Amino acid sequence: MPKVVTDIQRADRPATDRLAGFGVATVHEAQGRTGLMSSRIRPIYRGPAISGTAVTATVAPGDNWMIHVAAEQCQEGDILVVSPVSFSESGFFGDLLGTLLQTRGVRGLIIDAGCRDIDDLQAMGFPVWSRAINAHGTVKETLGDVNVPVSCADTVVNPGDAIVADNDGVVVVPRRDVARVGALAQARVEREDKIRSRYAAGELGLDMNNMRPRLAEKGLVYVRQSDLEQDN
Amino acid sequence: MPKVVTDIQRADRPATDRLAGFGVATVHEAQGRTGLMSSRIRPIYRGPAISGTAVTATVAPGDNWMIHVAAEQCQEGDILVVSPVSFSESGFFGDLLGTLLQTRGVRGLIIDAGCRDIDDLQAMGFPVWSRAINAHGTVKETLGDVNVPVSCADTVVNPGDAIVADNDGVVVVPRRDVARVGALAQARVEREDKIRSRYAAGELGLDMNNMRPRLAEKGLVYVRQSDLEQDN
Amino acid sequence: MPKVVTDIQRADRPATDRLAGFGVATVHEAQGRTGLMSSRIRPIYRGPAISGTAVTATVAPGDNWMIHVAAEQCQEGDILVVSPVSFSESGFFGDLLGTLLQTRGVRGLIIDAGCRDIDDLQAMGFPVWSRAINAHGTVKETLGDVNVPVSCADTVVNPGDAIVADNDGVVVVPRRDVARVGALAQARVEREDKIRSRYAAGELGLDMNNMRPRLAEKGLVYVRQSDLEQDN
Amino acid sequence: MPKVVTDIQRADRPATDRLAGFGVATVHEAQGRTGLMSSRIRPIYRGPAISGTAVTATVAPGDNWMIHVAAEQCQEGDILVVSPVSFSESGFFGDLLGTLLQTRGVRGLIIDAGCRDIDDLQAMGFPVWSRAINAHGTVKETLGDVNVPVSCADTVVNPGDAIVADNDGVVVVPRRDVARVGALAQARVEREDKIRSRYAAGELGLDMNNMRPRLAEKGLVYVRQSDLEQDN
Amino acid sequence: MPKVVTDIQRADRPATDRLAGFGVATVHEAQGRTGLMSSRIRPIYRGPAISGTAVTATVAPGDNWMIHVAAEQCQEGDILVVSPVSFSESGFFGDLLGTLLQTRGVRGLIIDAGCRDIDDLQAMGFPVWSRAINAHGTVKETLGDVNVPVSCADTVVNPGDAIVADNDGVVVVPRRDVARVGALAQARVEREDKIRSRYAAGELGLDMNNMRPRLAEKGLVYVRQSDLEQDN
Amino acid sequence: MPKVVTDIQRADRPATDRLAGFGVATVHEAQGRTGLMSSRIRPIYRGPAISGTAVTATVAPGDNWMIHVAAEQCQEGDILVVSPVSFSESGFFGDLLGTLLQTRGVRGLIIDAGCRDIDDLQAMGFPVWSRAINAHGTVKETLGDVNVPVSCADTVVNPGDAIVADNDGVVVVPRRDVARVGALAQARVEREDKIRSRYAAGELGLDMNNMRPRLAEKGLVYVRQSDLEQDN
Repeated sequence: MPKVVTDIQRADRPATDRLAGFGVATVHEAQGRTGLMSSRIRPIYRGPAISGTAVTATVAPGDNWMIHVAAEQCQEGDILVVSPVSFSESGFFGDLLGTLLQTRGVRGLIIDAGCRDIDDLQAMGFPVWSRAINAHGTVKETLGDVNVPVSCADTVVNPGDAIVADNDGVVVVPRRDVARVGALAQARVEREDKIRSRYAAGELGLDMNNMRPRLAEKGLVYVRQSDLEQDN
Repeated sequence: MPKVVTDIQRADRPATDRLAGFGVATVHEAQGRTGLMSSRIRPIYRGPAISGTAVTATVAPGDNWMIHVAAEQCQEGDILVVSPVSFSESGFFGDLLGTLLQTRGVRGLIIDAGCRDIDDLQAMGFPVWSRAINAHGTVKETLGDVNVPVSCADTVVNPGDAIVADNDGVVVVPRRDVARVGALAQARVEREDKIRSRYAAGELGLDMNNMRPRLAEKGLVYVRQSDLEQDN
Repeated sequence: MPKVVTDIQRADRPATDRLAGFGVATVHEAQGRTGLMSSRIRPIYRGPAISGTAVTATVAPGDNWMIHVAAEQCQEGDILVVSPVSFSESGFFGDLLGTLLQTRGVRGLIIDAGCRDIDDLQAMGFPVWSRAINAHGTVKETLGDVNVPVSCADTVVNPGDAIVADNDGVVVVPRRDVARVGALAQARVEREDKIRSRYAAGELGLDMNNMRPRLAEKGLVYVRQSDLEQDN
Repeated sequence: MPKVVTDIQRADRPATDRLAGFGVATVHEAQGRTGLMSSRIRPIYRGPAISGTAVTATVAPGDNWMIHVAAEQCQEGDILVVSPVSFSESGFFGDLLGTLLQTRGVRGLIIDAGCRDIDDLQAMGFPVWSRAINAHGTVKETLGDVNVPVSCADTVVNPGDAIVADNDGVVVVPRRDVARVGALAQARVEREDKIRSRYAAGELGLDMNNMRPRLAEKGLVYVRQSDLEQDN
Repeated sequence: MPKVVTDIQRADRPATDRLAGFGVATVHEAQGRTGLMSSRIRPIYRGPAISGTAVTATVAPGDNWMIHVAAEQCQEGDILVVSPVSFSESGFFGDLLGTLLQTRGVRGLIIDAGCRDIDDLQAMGFPVWSRAINAHGTVKETLGDVNVPVSCADTVVNPGDAIVADNDGVVVVPRRDVARVGALAQARVEREDKIRSRYAAGELGLDMNNMRPRLAEKGLVYVRQSDLEQDN
Repeated sequence: MPKVVTDIQRADRPATDRLAGFGVATVHEAQGRTGLMSSRIRPIYRGPAISGTAVTATVAPGDNWMIHVAAEQCQEGDILVVSPVSFSESGFFGDLLGTLLQTRGVRGLIIDAGCRDIDDLQAMGFPVWSRAINAHGTVKETLGDVNVPVSCADTVVNPGDAIVADNDGVVVVPRRDVARVGALAQARVEREDKIRSRYAAGELGLDMNNMRPRLAEKGLVYVRQSDLEQDN
C-alpha cells in the first residue's frame, strides 16, 4: 500500500547544520566509514557543501509524481532524497520543481536518477546530486512512498536522517547520531590540522605514524635498482 | 558501533518456501513492483529458483570477515544477503564459505560484490547471485554489521525478510507481507494462465484488453506505407 | 556502396536558429518527448545552447576520414553529426578540424565517440558534444557515408534535421517539424513561466494540478509516523 | 503525431530466410561492415541463428504498450525490433507476450531494453536479444510509433529490413540489399572455407596474404630477445 | 619503432602445465594476490581451465594485423595475449584465426577487446577470454609490437610468463616464479581440503580461526533483536 | 615478495619538463600513438598541463598504505602513479597526502582508483587524475610494490618514465625516449601550426592532403539528394 508518512521526527537542526562545515569525507570517517552514497551520484555543478534533514521518496522509473507529493512534506532545512524502485535515468527534476522546493526552504535534492535544466538550477543556486543529466521528461501515473526507509545510491536513508553533500559526494548520518558524529568530526578536523602542519613541514607519514617496523614485519624489502638489474 | 543482532524474527517458513514456485517477476508484480534488486546482480550459473529468509551483513570493501560472523547467525532455510559499504567487486565468497553455509542449511547467497570458484559452487549446487565474478581475495580486518537493515543492489533488505531469486533476478518481500504476497502471486499466476491460453489461441492483447479506444483517444493514427510515401 | 549525398534540403534557417533559445528540455517536450540523444553524450565544456542544421556522417571505428569528406558538405549554420558504425571512443576530432569547421561557419559537433584538444576547442569557442574525451588519434583508411540517415546516440538523425544542444544534452527535430515544434516550445515556455511564478509564490503542484483526488483514487494513504510506530 | 504504419513492404522472404545460415559476422562483412548492432545487445540464451523481416516499434521508457500495437502488425517470418526513446532497462517483455508473438509466427525479438521470464522463453524456444535481464514490469500509458525508422542499439532499422541474429549479435540488412548481400555472403563463406583449410594445414596468414613486404615497408623490425637484453 | 621480439624465454613447461589444475583463484592467492586480470575479461564459453606460456601483442584499436604477426611466434603450449593500445571492442578474432592458432598448438587467447564466431570457437574447443563479444571486423593497417611487456586487463604481462585461465578469470605468473607458485598453490590446495572437511562437518570459521577475541577487541557487540526494539 | 626499489633512474629532467608544453594529444601522436592511458582517468579539476617523472606504486584494493611508502621515494619533479592490483574506487588520496607530496615537490598524482577532498586539492593547486571521486576511506594493512613496472589505466608505466597529463588525459613516455619524443612533438606542433593556418584560410583537408583520388579509388560516390529520391 503506497503511503505518505507525515510528522516525521527530524535530526536536531543545529547539529545537522553544523555538519556541512566538516564535509562529506570527514563526516563519513567520523561515523566509521558508513553511510556514504555511491560515487555514481555527482553534483550537477560544483558548489558549496550543504547539510539538512532527509525527506525520502520512492518513485517508479520515469515517473516523478511522488516528488510533488513529497514536496508538501518538506520544510525549511530539509533535503529531498529520491530513489526509483528500478533503474531509471530520466530527467525527474528541473527548474520548476527546483523553484517549488527552494520556496519551501529545501536545501537541495539527492536523486539516484536523472536531472535536467542544470543551467537554470545553477543560476538559482539550487544544488542537485544526481546519477545522470538527462532532459527526458517523466510521467505522473504510478504511486510510490514518501518518508519510508529507502535505498538510495547504495545506502539506507531513513526519513529525518541528516544528509551532508559536497563535491566529494553524499553521506547519510542516522538521525540520533548527528550530535555524536559532529563531535567526532570536530575532533577529526583538529587531528587532521596537526597532521597537515607536520606534512607541510616535511615529515613523512612513515615516521609520523611509526609505520616502518610493521612494514618490515609484513615482509617489505628495499632494493636498489642497480642491484635488481645485476640480478637479471 | 558495529553489531550483530541475534534472535531475529523470520518470515513465516511455509509461506516463504512457497514463493520460489512463483518466480521473481510474478512476486515483484504481486507486491506492486517493489523490492526488485538491480539487474546488475546476476546468477553465477543458471539454476532453479530459490526462496528463503534473509540474514543480512554489511562488509567493508575487499573484506569478507563479517561473512564468517554472519554464518553463525544463519539457520536452515536462510539466504545470506551481503552488501559492501562502498563499491567493491573483490571475490568475497568461494567454495569454502559455500561449504560452510550449505552445511548450515543456507539456500544461497546474494552479494552486491564479487564471487569466485564458480565451477565448484555450481558442482555443489550452492547458488549465488553476484555483481561480478572475480577471483581477487579479501582480507579480514574491518567490522561491519549483521542483521541490520541493508541497502543491497538498490533495495532495502531487513533481516528476516523473504528473498526470492531466479534467473530473472532477485526480489525482497517484507517479512510481514509474505503470506499476502503469496496469495496475490497465486492469483496472478492463475490470471496469467488464462491470458496465455488466449494468446496461444491467436487473440491479440489489443482486443483482450480493449485497448483500441484508449489508443485512439491518446491520438494514435494508422497510415498505409504507400500513402506515407506519396506524401513525401 | 559508400556515398556522399550533396544538395541536401535543410530545415528552415530562422526557425532552426530560434530553437536554441528554448533549450533541449523544452524542445524535446514540445515534440512529444522524442528525438533526445542518450545522456552518454556530454558537452566538452559548459557553454551556451546552439541550434543548427545537421550534416551527418558515419565513420569506421578509429577512422576519421569521413569527417574531412563531410566538412566540404557543411555550410554556415550547420552542425556536424558523426556516428561510428561500431563502438569507438578514439579521439576523432581536435582543434585542427575544429578550425576547419569553424571557418566554414559550422556551429558545433555532435559525435558518438571521443574528442581531444578540449582546452583549445574551448578557447576557440567551438563546442562539441561527445561520448568521451580521449586523445587517441585516428587513421584514414575506411569509407563511410555522408548525409544519409544515421543512428547517433540512440536517435535517428536525417540530414537537414535541426539539432539543438545545450548543457542538458542534444535533441533532434525533424526537418519539416521545426516551425511547428518552435511554436509548441514557445507556448510551453509561456506556460512554464506561469507555473514558475505560482511555485515561487508557495503554491504546491498537488493543488495547482488538482492531483489529490487522483492520488487518493490510486490508493495513496497518509499516516502519521507516531501511529506507524505504535503499529509495529 | 504517434502513428502505426501498415502494409509495409518486406524484404524478399526466401532471400531473408537464407541469411540465417551465414551468421551475423559473415553478413555484416558482406555488406561492408555496416548494420551491426551494439554489443550491448545479447541473447538471453544461446540458441540457433535466426533471420526475418523487421517490424519496428518505439516505446516510452518503462512502457510496453506499443508492443501490443506492434504485435498486430506482425506476420509469419517477422522479427520485432523495439527501441525505447530514452534509456530504459525495465522488463518490457516476458513469456505472455512471447506466446502472443510466437502464435503469430514471429521468429524473435530484438529489444534495446530489458526482458524477463527468460527460463520460460527458453523453454518455449522464443529467442530474445536484449540489453538487460530485468523483471521490473512496465506500464501502458504513453504512445510511440510502429513501423517507422528506429535507432536500435546504434543502428538504423527500417520496417521491412532483414534482421539476422545469432550468438555473436544482431545485424540489419536493408530491405533492397538482401539478395545482393546473400550472394556476397555466400562468396565469403566459400573463400573462408579455403582459408580455413590452408590454416589447418599449417600455413600462416603472413604468407597466404603476402603480408611480409608491407610489414617491412611500414617499419616492423625483428629482434632477438637476447640482443635486446644486451642492449640495456 | 614497432618490433617483434623472437626467441623469447618461456616459463618452464611442466611447471606451467601443472598450474591449470590449481585454478585461477588458488594461483592468484599463492602468489600474494597479484597478477589477476580485471573481471571485465570473461570466457566466451564455460570450459575447462588452461595454462600456458604467454606470447604478447599490442594492436591498434580495430586493427588485428599484429595477430597474424604474433601467430608466427607462437609454439605448442603458448597462450596468445592481445591488448589494444586504446580502447576497442571490435571483433579482432574469429574461427579462422582460431584454426590458425590451434594448428600451431596454441591453447587459447586472452584479448582485452572483442571476439566473434563464438559458436564455431566453442565447437572447435578453442577457448577465448575477451572483453566483449562483437562481430565487427577489423582492418590491417597499423603496426604494433609482439613479445614486449603489455598491459592487458589491468595487469602487466611479460612474454614467456605463465597464464592460467578458467571460468573465474585469468591470472599471470611471472616466468621465473612458476615453480615456486606451483608449490605454494599445492600447499594451499591441501590446506583448503582440510578446511573444507571441517566446514562440511559443521565447524564455524569463527572457531576454526579463533576469530572471536579479535572481533571483540575491535568492538563487535551482540544484541538481541528484542532488546534493540525496546530501545527505540 | 613486496619490495621498494630505490635509486631509480629518471628521465632527463629538462626534456621531461618540456613535454608539458606540447600536451597529451601531441606527445602521444609523436611517439606513434602509444602510451595513452584509458579515458576512464579524468582530472578532478580542469587545470594546466603537467609533466614529470614517474614513481610507481601498486596498492591493494581499498588500502593506501603503499602511498606513504612511495612518498619517501618521491623527489622534486616526480609524478606519483598508483594502481590497485584489483579494481577499487575507494578514496585512496585526499588533501593530507596532497600536502605531503606537494611539500616534496611532487607535481601531481595519477591514480586508477578514487580520490577525495577535491575542493581542497584544487585550492592547493595539487592536480590529480583519477578514475572516480569517492570519499570512502582506505585501510593500511596490505603491502604492494614501489617502483616496479605497473599497469595503470591500460598502459605499462616503468619507474622513471615521463608522464604528461592535461585535460585530454594522461600519456606515458618511456624514460629513454623523452628527448626524441620531444623533438618529434616539436616538429608536429610546427606542422600543425601550418595546417591550422591553411584551414583557417578556408582550405579543405580533402585538398590539402590530396585525398580525392584515394577516396574515389576506394569507391566513394557523390549523389544529389534529388536524384536519390527519384530512385526510390
